[in-house]
Amino acid sequence: MLIYTNMPKIETIRHSIAHLAAGAVQELYPGTKFAIGPVIENGFYYDFDLPRKIAAEDLPRIEKKIKELINQGISFKKRSLSKAQAKKLFKDQPYKLELIKDIENKNVSIYQSKDFIDLCKGPHVRSSREISEDAFKLTKVAGAYWKGDEKNPMLTRIYGVAFNNKKQLKDYLKQQAEAEKRDHRILGQKLEIFIFDQQVGAGLPLWLPKGTTLRKIIKDYLYQELVNEGYEWIETPHIGKLDLWETSGHWKLYRENIYSPIDIEKDKYVLKPMNCPFHVKIYQSKIRSYCDLPIKYSEIGTVYRYERSGTLHGLTRVRGFSQDDAHVICQPGQLLEEVTKLTKYALKTLETFGFKDCFIYLSTRPEKYAGTPKDWAKATDSLKQVLKKLKLDYRVDPGGGVFYGPKIDIKVKDSLKREWQFTTIQFDFNLPKRFKMTYIDKKGKKQQPFMIHRAILGSLERFIGVLLEHYGGALPLWLSPIQTWVIPVSSGHKKYAKQIHDLLTSNGLRSELKDDNETVSKKIRGGEIQKIPYLLVVGDKEIKSKSVSLRQRQKGDLGIIKIDKLIDKIKQEIQVKK
Amino acid sequence: MLIYTNMPKIETIRHSIAHLAAGAVQELYPGTKFAIGPVIENGFYYDFDLPRKIAAEDLPRIEKKIKELINQGISFKKRSLSKAQAKKLFKDQPYKLELIKDIENKNVSIYQSKDFIDLCKGPHVRSSREISEDAFKLTKVAGAYWKGDEKNPMLTRIYGVAFNNKKQLKDYLKQQAEAEKRDHRILGQKLEIFIFDQQVGAGLPLWLPKGTTLRKIIKDYLYQELVNEGYEWIETPHIGKLDLWETSGHWKLYRENIYSPIDIEKDKYVLKPMNCPFHVKIYQSKIRSYCDLPIKYSEIGTVYRYERSGTLHGLTRVRGFSQDDAHVICQPGQLLEEVTKLTKYALKTLETFGFKDCFIYLSTRPEKYAGTPKDWAKATDSLKQVLKKLKLDYRVDPGGGVFYGPKIDIKVKDSLKREWQFTTIQFDFNLPKRFKMTYIDKKGKKQQPFMIHRAILGSLERFIGVLLEHYGGALPLWLSPIQTWVIPVSSGHKKYAKQIHDLLTSNGLRSELKDDNETVSKKIRGGEIQKIPYLLVVGDKEIKSKSVSLRQRQKGDLGIIKIDKLIDKIKQEIQVKK
Repeated sequence: MLIYTNMPKIETIRHSIAHLAAGAVQELYPGTKFAIGPVIENGFYYDFDLPRKIAAEDLPRIEKKIKELINQGISFKKRSLSKAQAKKLFKDQPYKLELIKDIENKNVSIYQSKDFIDLCKGPHVRSSREISEDAFKLTKVAGAYWKGDEKNPMLTRIYGVAFNNKKQLKDYLKQQAEAEKRDHRILGQKLEIFIFDQQVGAGLPLWLPKGTTLRKIIKDYLYQELVNEGYEWIETPHIGKLDLWETSGHWKLYRENIYSPIDIEKDKYVLKPMNCPFHVKIYQSKIRSYCDLPIKYSEIGTVYRYERSGTLHGLTRVRGFSQDDAHVICQPGQLLEEVTKLTKYALKTLETFGFKDCFIYLSTRPEKYAGTPKDWAKATDSLKQVLKKLKLDYRVDPGGGVFYGPKIDIKVKDSLKREWQFTTIQFDFNLPKRFKMTYIDKKGKKQQPFMIHRAILGSLERFIGVLLEHYGGALPLWLSPIQTWVIPVSSGHKKYAKQIHDLLTSNGLRSELKDDNETVSKKIRGGEIQKIPYLLVVGDKEIKSKSVSLRQRQKGDLGIIKIDKLIDKIKQEIQVKK
Repeated sequence: MLIYTNMPKIETIRHSIAHLAAGAVQELYPGTKFAIGPVIENGFYYDFDLPRKIAAEDLPRIEKKIKELINQGISFKKRSLSKAQAKKLFKDQPYKLELIKDIENKNVSIYQSKDFIDLCKGPHVRSSREISEDAFKLTKVAGAYWKGDEKNPMLTRIYGVAFNNKKQLKDYLKQQAEAEKRDHRILGQKLEIFIFDQQVGAGLPLWLPKGTTLRKIIKDYLYQELVNEGYEWIETPHIGKLDLWETSGHWKLYRENIYSPIDIEKDKYVLKPMNCPFHVKIYQSKIRSYCDLPIKYSEIGTVYRYERSGTLHGLTRVRGFSQDDAHVICQPGQLLEEVTKLTKYALKTLETFGFKDCFIYLSTRPEKYAGTPKDWAKATDSLKQVLKKLKLDYRVDPGGGVFYGPKIDIKVKDSLKREWQFTTIQFDFNLPKRFKMTYIDKKGKKQQPFMIHRAILGSLERFIGVLLEHYGGALPLWLSPIQTWVIPVSSGHKKYAKQIHDLLTSNGLRSELKDDNETVSKKIRGGEIQKIPYLLVVGDKEIKSKSVSLRQRQKGDLGIIKIDKLIDKIKQEIQVKK
């Protein structure tokens, strides 16, 4: 094995494999026209205009050819040509010609590896021997428009991944397989949580009974927690006059995310893209005094925001979503305490749902902003003080604040080590001023209150999507839409099974009675697929001893347990996990 | 007093007073042009084009003049004229001329009472002495367009009520005053249940914290009850492709109630006017077998329907409302049982909320209908059988069914004896066919299921509006957003008051601690205005005996009660009332 003093960067290796892939395609499918082949995260792709259609089944053949090329020790040679020379060289390659036309320099550089020549800036490996033949894999074939424009011809894109060594590839593929198994779009269907329907429209989930139960569990949990935290719950409409968002400034700044207005009599109404103006209106429905502050309004408000259909993805990117939204309206002197409470509460809540790996970001003043630099400095300093006081590590995102104020964001790492942003705590200089919000201070003078927007989970849709992937569908007991299945061994045991089921239900547990005529083993398998936390099998033995045979998810058979003991056990587990 | 063998009907009296009112106006405001003066519920109105503006302050003067006319024993004389003669007679009365033009008969009839002559079919009293001078009252002045068309001139409408005798008038006015005191629009503001806001838009309520709590109590109650009844809860979006309502047939038939479509990419979407198509889509998300039926989907779905701004009225007529909607999808043989359960459940639910006076209506096939006459006969007969089996009285509304099937409606009488329709149980021949819904029967063959739409409370908004008026704001304990106020006598008692408040809260009761610096008597008055069920006052005596001084709404002081006894008492009361 050759030792190079300068190991090529992984991006260089990926790019060189892309060229080898193109070379392989050139040999296997003569007459192919070549488009582009850039490096992407974890690998590369190359777009081809092929003389015939290919599918995933063809990839191993191309892969084999690439390996042959790697083992031939092909060198990558760079040359500089004038544009005229290049045009001549690529005269049969229309996509390359188009690319040459777009280049502003006088000269262009090309790379040759064996018989394949490409228009390319490089860099590349010096020899194909620098590439491990067992550390790459072609992963899929897809259609892609030339230059991403649907008016252009549809090309064939071949994707690949590549790493420095075999182990890295293996680890990556394993994680990918795990992520695929945990894909909430697949799990959501298998566990009957939600569906999408073409006739309803893209990005608009319909929640099936189990998904609706899950949403209710989460909503009820938030409801009670926030009542305890001194929040008041409100409910506001899904449409409102456009005037509201003109006043708030959103119509000017976020218009592209707001759906086109609906005409009602002489006014224009829009689907609400955010709840804020409604909360302001409720605040303004009576005169507020300093004694009333802080006022904390909370709403699970369903908002609608335009997203291009191409960017929609299961529950994690939708067109209508329910925010766990709240606004804290307070006196300037109360800001520190309120942000402290909020930050602590957010971390506690995320932990309750099983997200213990949290990262905090503090975003400061962007170029365009509302309020004065002094206001910003003061507010940003307050946020810093809070994080310091709570002894929390954080990273600063300079200029990353929204135009209306600095913010604290909390990201979590899921069980697959992927980062998701859930919580945002945003200071707002804008709305109190634009809506002329006031309160009466101790001296009887009108003052402008401070306002904090915040969402802990962000969007219920996205949160549930991530939750499903985080747990691979095996939601903790307290979140499981169905907690127990009661399975009678034969029809003679149905009555007892029903008694057990009713007892569980009357104890507030979510149980299902599986008394149809399937075999017990098939039901147990079904319960495992449905990720039911506890399966309770009952037959003669169990009836005699007033007990059940218990199977716990992921643990298997736990033996016979008395029914009252079981109920205690489950109730305790729900309490502790929560 | 003269005794007439034929007492005039009350409508005749009302109409005659309308003429006398016009006569009075003619005397008081010479130059007045007269429009029309029909009989309405409880009274009459007359529309005038007056030479000067008048207001409510002017009504007593007109009323006095009418009484003078009554006491003059004016006779009402009828004459028949040709249209030409009539035109001559009314030459200075442009509105009458317009009316004459519209009459198709050759002759017209006129009535004369003293100096006032009106175009009128009658009948009228023979003499004004048949009218009790103390059994009528002019009630208000309002603007009204000629022929109800806003392009026509605005006239002045004077309203009046009239009865057979003084007592009836007094009773009516008393009931009116009570209704006004109970007006949910006023109560809603006073009790801080909801607001409307001009900038948000007409007919779109914003629910304040107490209103949101009330909604949650109702929703949670329905949620649990329906789970017990075998319903599954689902949640669907507020918009969907127009295609859904084209398929359902609503776009063709109810277009005027659907808001204008929103363009998203290449498709048209509408705010959902009803939830049905979404429920169908969820039903169709997998293959259903006869074993799965009945399937019962429930949703508190917020729908948006266009109403002219002129017809909007507080919560009882809005533009967006939350239906307690459900669809029962069953085999034909299950219809009877399901409708029986539904009817019983509906009556039980209405009673739980305090509506015991229920009237049942059965609406049969209208002129235009979906399905076959045989289907209709069978379904209608099923509904009749159910009502018979349940021994329920009902009235038939012939032809009153919706086009897609016969229905059972339940109306209630509120505490002011006004009728409201809440429940509707509708059979549907239309949607299963249009959406091609199927289930697999015992023989493995595809069959079309039966479908029942139903809402028990109808619209949560309207229901809450009626609920507030029914109880005059004094909602039963279990529905009260705030159940107790804890009031410390002085600042030394605040700590104990807080303990009591926390104890109530931890027992699941909705309590508020009133520890601001107002006087106790002012707080008690405040609690009465806010219709708080229990006021708990605590001072030295109460601390010593671990008790509270209890005041119950509408009952006043109940004396001292031990705190644990109080909690038991309240919990018991909540259970019983529910």
